[in-house]
Amino acid sequence: MVKVALLGCGTVGSGVFRLLESNRDLIAARCGEIISVVRVLERDTARAARLGIGPEMLAADFAEILADDDIQVVVELIGGIEPARTFVLQAMERGKHVVTANKDLIAVHGRELFDTAEACGVDFGFEASVGGGIPVIYPLKHSLAGNRIKEVIGIVNGTTNYILTRMTREGSEFSHALREAQELGYAEADPSADVEGYDAARKIAILASIAFNSRVTLDQVYVEGITGLSPLDIVYGRDLGYVVKLLAIAQDIEGQLQVRVHPAFIPQAHPLAAVEDVYNAVFITGDAVGEVMFYGRGAGQMPTASAVVGDLMEIARGIHRGASGATTCTCFEQREMMPVDRLASKFYIRMLVKDRPGVLAAIAGVFGSHQVSIATVLQKTSGEEFAQLVLVTHYVAESDLRDALAVLDGMSIVADICCVVRVEGERR
Amino acid sequence: MVKVALLGCGTVGSGVFRLLESNRDLIAARCGEIISVVRVLERDTARAARLGIGPEMLAADFAEILADDDIQVVVELIGGIEPARTFVLQAMERGKHVVTANKDLIAVHGRELFDTAEACGVDFGFEASVGGGIPVIYPLKHSLAGNRIKEVIGIVNGTTNYILTRMTREGSEFSHALREAQELGYAEADPSADVEGYDAARKIAILASIAFNSRVTLDQVYVEGITGLSPLDIVYGRDLGYVVKLLAIAQDIEGQLQVRVHPAFIPQAHPLAAVEDVYNAVFITGDAVGEVMFYGRGAGQMPTASAVVGDLMEIARGIHRGASGATTCTCFEQREMMPVDRLASKFYIRMLVKDRPGVLAAIAGVFGSHQVSIATVLQKTSGEEFAQLVLVTHYVAESDLRDALAVLDGMSIVADICCVVRVEGERR
Repeated sequence: MVKVALLGCGTVGSGVFRLLESNRDLIAARCGEIISVVRVLERDTARAARLGIGPEMLAADFAEILADDDIQVVVELIGGIEPARTFVLQAMERGKHVVTANKDLIAVHGRELFDTAEACGVDFGFEASVGGGIPVIYPLKHSLAGNRIKEVIGIVNGTTNYILTRMTREGSEFSHALREAQELGYAEADPSADVEGYDAARKIAILASIAFNSRVTLDQVYVEGITGLSPLDIVYGRDLGYVVKLLAIAQDIEGQLQVRVHPAFIPQAHPLAAVEDVYNAVFITGDAVGEVMFYGRGAGQMPTASAVVGDLMEIARGIHRGASGATTCTCFEQREMMPVDRLASKFYIRMLVKDRPGVLAAIAGVFGSHQVSIATVLQKTSGEEFAQLVLVTHYVAESDLRDALAVLDGMSIVADICCVVRVEGERR
Repeated sequence: MVKVALLGCGTVGSGVFRLLESNRDLIAARCGEIISVVRVLERDTARAARLGIGPEMLAADFAEILADDDIQVVVELIGGIEPARTFVLQAMERGKHVVTANKDLIAVHGRELFDTAEACGVDFGFEASVGGGIPVIYPLKHSLAGNRIKEVIGIVNGTTNYILTRMTREGSEFSHALREAQELGYAEADPSADVEGYDAARKIAILASIAFNSRVTLDQVYVEGITGLSPLDIVYGRDLGYVVKLLAIAQDIEGQLQVRVHPAFIPQAHPLAAVEDVYNAVFITGDAVGEVMFYGRGAGQMPTASAVVGDLMEIARGIHRGASGATTCTCFEQREMMPVDRLASKFYIRMLVKDRPGVLAAIAGVFGSHQVSIATVLQKTSGEEFAQLVLVTHYVAESDLRDALAVLDGMSIVADICCVVRVEGERR
């Protein structure tokens, strides 16, 4: 029997507890050990009682769990940085294996955690930190290990994918779709971590670190959220053959790493275009395997519990075989980061411009003089003073585009540069 | 260093050899050991020479490899049953780990191979036997291990998926699309194993055995190929909101297993509907994780090599940590198989019928008296003697449908029952 302490029995914690109960025999048959939660750290005793966790199972404090040498694995589901970080480090130092779903912790303190796990000879599982129940960290580290990874593109935030799906299907405004997501429990009361892209940024920092064997932290990720998108852009995008998604992208560009989160148009036929609602997917390109994609529910109680229990079973197998403590920090390289303005991308640009002859020529002239080559122009003449002008560029340097837009922004014929969205996922 | 013998350097074998060369340092850094091919069994010395394999590396026969105690791993890429089976068993008995891409071998002799691996304390990797480079066996056994699996639905044959994609996009006849696939090297000169569904049947037998922990062999899989489909059915299916795919399905139906391969209509919005050309995907439903899908290239030299090398690296990690020999047969249950005629499905049926009043009533009457309830009727009146009648049923017992069709087949108003296709992937 493998004895486990559960830190926190909120949504995911109670899911883990229930899954270990309901599939107890199957889990034992598959990994050779019964996995049993013997101690729970949870202040809300009523919540614990609802799961059938009596007072005798509740720990007074973390020190009690730490001191109990029977406990082999600590499952950290408190979330946030502290006290989670301290608990995890202390558990490792006491020789306990750790499983966590805490993306904040890994994206910020990953190196410290892996180094400590390695030094202490304990296992450290964190599959649940990215993509909920979707197996992605494990396959990337194992099944795809023979590949030099070129690119990881993820839809890794269910809240924003739900909002964008609503906006696309029903033409709703962002604020309306957000409210709907909040009512359904898909978005928090304070949705900023999701809609500003920081949740996705944490996840792509973790995936990039694994894919490229080089530590990428949250502050190295360029981040743009989805709050600036309007249903109008989604409609124009559709006319151009695109679907909008909040993408988390990590690329190896001639040895440098470029990691970013931003809304992007992708071709309607791209496998990621069909990933809708709260579903997540991670699309990986490797030099041997080509393109592979992992798809599923990126959040939620039982999908996340599935990932946590998968990690627990891996640890149980190790204990069963006397082969624990295989964690090593896989970031054995130190790759330089490429700043986003050095990136070459295609851009969709929507502007409100004076509707009179010569305007397009003037605008095209500004782009041309900044080496920004235009691929497509959609001009919606309105018969009014201003018209919507939609452009799609060829691949251009981001810095050139920014310079051109700065000039255009100062011109009297340009009332507003409403929206700039990168185009991704096309073959070059 | 982990020393490997390669049996066969055809397409996949040379891919494995090249991948181990080109990513040698990265592979070593990731798994702790240099993986080195030290011996090759290949009759075609010119082919070996093209890879830079000189005569000194070529083994005269398998006995030479077997006798060499320095060789820790044998990679079997000969294909077919014999001599592959004998070589694999002998290698295991000499304490050598084995990696194979051989689905025929596993689908037929799986139990013998796993039992031998376990008895000999060696590792046995076979990720490449299903889905080419797509990680599916490993995630199913590890990441998703906490789930009771309810269903596995795969598009696991690239040749037929390519043919069906052509037929759907261009309205080509089967024979034309097959010829195109042959010209592109996607189909063999004798395409029967692919188009009759037997390749997919082998793969779903393997996946079902893992997902349900109960051995499923090829002869237990109900198989229908795609040769009976016409472009007309694809067009009618599209009008009804469906896409046609050759599906390999394994289900847990109240404790019994139902495993089958047949063409099926799936809703256009189903994630599998977007899997086109030679791409493969495996869609898995677990009780905790919900729906997950793995997508990628299901065949081809380098994708398959990616899977083989992933398995090799797992073995190298085990050797490095002194923790080899973890293979156990995971089929610890013995589940009953449910015959296909006990299955309840929705069916698409296309018939050629006399175009005169009362015919529909007569046909509907036959279905009704056999408990076959009709959901949708499309009648294409032609002004000629015969008309196309397309029906979609509600969920009905397969045996009831067959009885009804047998009666209809004997009626003078029915000229032909042209096509019967199951409808899958809808929520019930």
